[in-house]
Amino acid sequence: MLQFMPVFRVLGGLVLGLACLMLAPFLVDFFGGRRDSSFFASAIVAALFTGLTLIIMSGSREGGFELTRRQAFLTTGLIWTVIPVFAALPLMSAGLSFIDAYFEAASAMTTTGATVMVGLDNAPPGLLLWRSLLQWIGGVGIVVLGIIVMPSLRVGGMQLFQTESSDKSEKIFSRGFDLMQWIAIVYVGLTAMCALVYGWLGMSSFDAINHAMSSISTGGFSTHDASFGYFESPPLEWAAVVFMFAGALPFVAFIRTLRGRDMAIFTDVQVRGYAITLLLLTFTVGVTHAIVNNVPIGDALRSAAFNLTSVATTTGFASEDYQTWGAFAVSAFFVTTFLGGCSGSTAGGIKIYRLQILAKFARAYLTRLVNPSQVIVVSYSTRRVDREVEVAILTFLIAMLATTALFTLILGWMGLDFVTALSSVVTCLNNVGPGLGSVVGPAGNFATLPEAAKIVLAFAMILGRLEFFTLMVMLTPAFWRG
Amino acid sequence: MLQFMPVFRVLGGLVLGLACLMLAPFLVDFFGGRRDSSFFASAIVAALFTGLTLIIMSGSREGGFELTRRQAFLTTGLIWTVIPVFAALPLMSAGLSFIDAYFEAASAMTTTGATVMVGLDNAPPGLLLWRSLLQWIGGVGIVVLGIIVMPSLRVGGMQLFQTESSDKSEKIFSRGFDLMQWIAIVYVGLTAMCALVYGWLGMSSFDAINHAMSSISTGGFSTHDASFGYFESPPLEWAAVVFMFAGALPFVAFIRTLRGRDMAIFTDVQVRGYAITLLLLTFTVGVTHAIVNNVPIGDALRSAAFNLTSVATTTGFASEDYQTWGAFAVSAFFVTTFLGGCSGSTAGGIKIYRLQILAKFARAYLTRLVNPSQVIVVSYSTRRVDREVEVAILTFLIAMLATTALFTLILGWMGLDFVTALSSVVTCLNNVGPGLGSVVGPAGNFATLPEAAKIVLAFAMILGRLEFFTLMVMLTPAFWRG
Repeated sequence: MLQFMPVFRVLGGLVLGLACLMLAPFLVDFFGGRRDSSFFASAIVAALFTGLTLIIMSGSREGGFELTRRQAFLTTGLIWTVIPVFAALPLMSAGLSFIDAYFEAASAMTTTGATVMVGLDNAPPGLLLWRSLLQWIGGVGIVVLGIIVMPSLRVGGMQLFQTESSDKSEKIFSRGFDLMQWIAIVYVGLTAMCALVYGWLGMSSFDAINHAMSSISTGGFSTHDASFGYFESPPLEWAAVVFMFAGALPFVAFIRTLRGRDMAIFTDVQVRGYAITLLLLTFTVGVTHAIVNNVPIGDALRSAAFNLTSVATTTGFASEDYQTWGAFAVSAFFVTTFLGGCSGSTAGGIKIYRLQILAKFARAYLTRLVNPSQVIVVSYSTRRVDREVEVAILTFLIAMLATTALFTLILGWMGLDFVTALSSVVTCLNNVGPGLGSVVGPAGNFATLPEAAKIVLAFAMILGRLEFFTLMVMLTPAFWRG
Repeated sequence: MLQFMPVFRVLGGLVLGLACLMLAPFLVDFFGGRRDSSFFASAIVAALFTGLTLIIMSGSREGGFELTRRQAFLTTGLIWTVIPVFAALPLMSAGLSFIDAYFEAASAMTTTGATVMVGLDNAPPGLLLWRSLLQWIGGVGIVVLGIIVMPSLRVGGMQLFQTESSDKSEKIFSRGFDLMQWIAIVYVGLTAMCALVYGWLGMSSFDAINHAMSSISTGGFSTHDASFGYFESPPLEWAAVVFMFAGALPFVAFIRTLRGRDMAIFTDVQVRGYAITLLLLTFTVGVTHAIVNNVPIGDALRSAAFNLTSVATTTGFASEDYQTWGAFAVSAFFVTTFLGGCSGSTAGGIKIYRLQILAKFARAYLTRLVNPSQVIVVSYSTRRVDREVEVAILTFLIAMLATTALFTLILGWMGLDFVTALSSVVTCLNNVGPGLGSVVGPAGNFATLPEAAKIVLAFAMILGRLEFFTLMVMLTPAFWRG
């Protein structure tokens, strides 16, 4: 039998944590005399009450926070589906329905960055801060999940990155506190650096803090309807390229470099592959943009670098509507939506290590077709890729393709045109943000979609964020039988 | 060193065979007094000359038609790229450029069915017959490839269907003549039945013969610009549903049933899975079409059955522009474009057995996530799916996704809009025929695409038809080093 008590304990603790986090935007808007502070107050009360109830229900703290595999799956799934319920409540002060607010909160926590809110420029600062904070905690949550939890649960091929701190036993969450401290140092450090640079380059302190949280978490929410385009500042765009890129790098590499073990952040095979891919993309799209639209090459390359890095790192800031750049740009941005970042980063998507391993498999397969007797061992960054990882990557691809097809059909059935349906599913599953077309494109807004479509897309974000199987495993009878 | 002589011998023989085949349309148009018969005459001379040269070049017939693995890859690749060169020549009599004619010939031989020709209703009968004949020999070529050659070459997971007649040794093409006779019996038998039924239901003999060859080969070329819509006959559409479906079934199952071994054509796991998938698709799209567009349910179900079966079996006939059915239909047809038929049929696409095996992998993976110690053996239709098949299916998916992304980018770069670029690549890689949008959609025509795009798409058809790796293997240095 699945024991729910430890699950409730962890969930309760996190709901309480959310209540504490809400104090910040509450105080900002309370002292600013904004009427939405009452929404924050109600949400804090609701979260406190629920959190305490869950903890009291869960009984004695015997066993601490240790979870079995199945409890860990359930807890992870519940965190990313239940926390947005409470996180959504304050957002309703902007006149959103609960479904819209849940969509917005889930979009923030999964660091997708697709928004249904308009009139951001005049929104209460506490509310804007809340959206940024949600992205920021969502981002670090994903790093912890990617470095500590997923490898133990063996989801999506992440076991390839099992560090000495990831636990192979049935009990997880009990170790890795040392690693979590290092993650926190890197995360807070990068965010602080980003905010300082943004402020130094001309953003107001408030904008700098919000956009720093949004950049490092690769979330993509802005405090302006025009997104990053509001600032019209080339230096700021280049700075954002650097920090979005940093957010999409493997945090383990940062930690190794900080600890003085090696220079992994420059030499890691993922980092190099990712940098080369982005450079190639930027160059191709930028040069084509310059030629086709008669744009100065410097401007074209900067626009391409900013918007492609934004989509590739699954951030989703936009500086302009790149759909006006012509047919090639639209196709290039669509393909880039799948790319994602590195393992153990805040980014979503297929991720560069899976693509690199897939390329190795294809090459090995081709060689074996010529010489069937040849034995080829596929290894990745000093580790041998065993059959378990192979199957995990294969099933990840299947899950992504199958859900893309299924969700596109469902949205089509709800009346969304093909490009809107397909691109909104792809952008949500990959946690990017903008899709294609006038509705969900970089200059559009998800607000006008039917409510049912928003529910599907919010689910898609969470499904993609948890690498599909963390949720899908709960659909198996074996999970509940035990 | 790779010996080219046996390759030339086989290729030369097939080019000579093509010259003989061309005699039929030549005679039709010669006695019909059509001026295009001179094009056929020139093409016959060119093919005879080239075929004889190749055979003479290849020297003594020592070693017969036996090929090593690498020679078999090279021969297969050359057959599907070089034969269309000669097959294209007569098509130029319709005023096509050589590239257009090559596109049309490749489209026929790969049984894709995407056309650049207009004014079919007034075209010389010999020319129309030639297009149909090309599809018909292309179709049977693919069945032979799928049942005899691919399993030996271990491409794309086809080794799962290695029959007693497929040779596991290095020498292939030398056995399986018994099996080839049975394939011929089934193929000719089905085509004859189809032509008789079509004629009985009202087609002229000429239309019946052409459309029968086009249906069983799942090619999709018609003798009318309005495709199957020209006949405006519900009984004919239902008949076509049956025969297109038959063309997409595993020919081995037909043969087993004919030989009285078992009732495989009704009980085979692929046949059942495929039938259920098509029924579900037809029902969902048909009912939605009836409700949304206020169409009588009988008409809606028939239209859905005809057009979905046409796309799913990769035939590509159209009875009307289903893009006018609304958003859901467009998404549904796009997803269906990937489906394909069964192994060892004339159909292309991902194919139902790969989808069934992928689903089994996903289920096994989910169960193992819950219980990591559980050992799960994935088997398919009494055979165990070993790692080799697993890798073959994985690499097939990678190849399809990578080429879809790459070719979409290339076509976008040539100026095609996103939907046209993506859907034309998908429809050509899967050998279906119609894409989406006004240009390459079911009511459109590939004629207006830029010539460079037609070269890319012709290559995509051949690449998809040969399950990617038959061609891609030639890109490896190992292939040429030996």
